[in-house]
Amino acid sequence: MTEKKHIFSILVDNQPGVLSRIAGLFSGRGYNIESLCVAETADPLISRITMVTTGDSQIIEQIKKQLFKLINVIKVHDLSDTDCVRRELILIKVSAKPGNRAEILRIADIFRAKIVDVSTEHYTIEVTGNEEKLKAIQVLLKPIGIMEIARTGNIALLRESK
Amino acid sequence: MTEKKHIFSILVDNQPGVLSRIAGLFSGRGYNIESLCVAETADPLISRITMVTTGDSQIIEQIKKQLFKLINVIKVHDLSDTDCVRRELILIKVSAKPGNRAEILRIADIFRAKIVDVSTEHYTIEVTGNEEKLKAIQVLLKPIGIMEIARTGNIALLRESK
Repeated sequence: MTEKKHIFSILVDNQPGVLSRIAGLFSGRGYNIESLCVAETADPLISRITMVTTGDSQIIEQIKKQLFKLINVIKVHDLSDTDCVRRELILIKVSAKPGNRAEILRIADIFRAKIVDVSTEHYTIEVTGNEEKLKAIQVLLKPIGIMEIARTGNIALLRESK
Repeated sequence: MTEKKHIFSILVDNQPGVLSRIAGLFSGRGYNIESLCVAETADPLISRITMVTTGDSQIIEQIKKQLFKLINVIKVHDLSDTDCVRRELILIKVSAKPGNRAEILRIADIFRAKIVDVSTEHYTIEVTGNEEKLKAIQVLLKPIGIMEIARTGNIALLRESK
């Protein structure tokens, strides 16, 4: 048993039902989907699903084969062992008491994050990066007071630089 | 019939099957999900699903009521008519012939986009924003040659500034 993180990029016809079938393939085997993004590609008839899951490589290999057979699935790319650009976007609403504001701005600056909403008591921060970077900023903001988080989950494109 | 864009933020138990059931609710009524993001919240036992769909408000209202009744669904927020920060992340791989590179960098600069991968023939650009901004950069890059796109779909948090 080799448990590892897998990332799939799946091109599908933009039709109702395809997402439910794909999600069902994973849940039917008791596999949880860690993160998932679905959005249209440049061609509005085709959507791309990017999915991250952790599990036994053999079972994931079986699921991959079944993915290919599903109706409306056009292409399945397994990006797990490839060199790809992986990014995620996260919005963090943080308590911004006067005594903490300078520290929040310092942290935002270090992580090249943007303040996208400000009220008398909150800042909302937008930041992108890989998993490690986004974990790190959350660790730093936690003691200040994270009120709410929204994450997109990972998207990925193959690197051409290698 | 009032067709409009709806955005839902749904908190769910991080359990296999919940995504498939939610997606099934929409596809069962022939409703397409335009974009969808799933990722863990600060509490790893709870995930947040952000979903965008377009349709008749009355039917969406029915779907919303059914969402509440699903197993493992904790909270359903309808952010459609609220003032919220909405953001999406997009990776665009663009053909970067020598004659086009300066123009690509100019466009990236204007949209505060980052070049995250460079090869002899491609640039990969990371950019965040709302729908209009992300459409605009794609319109500008299209004649230069977009090779591949990966989008996260929308995430959203309520604004506190109003």
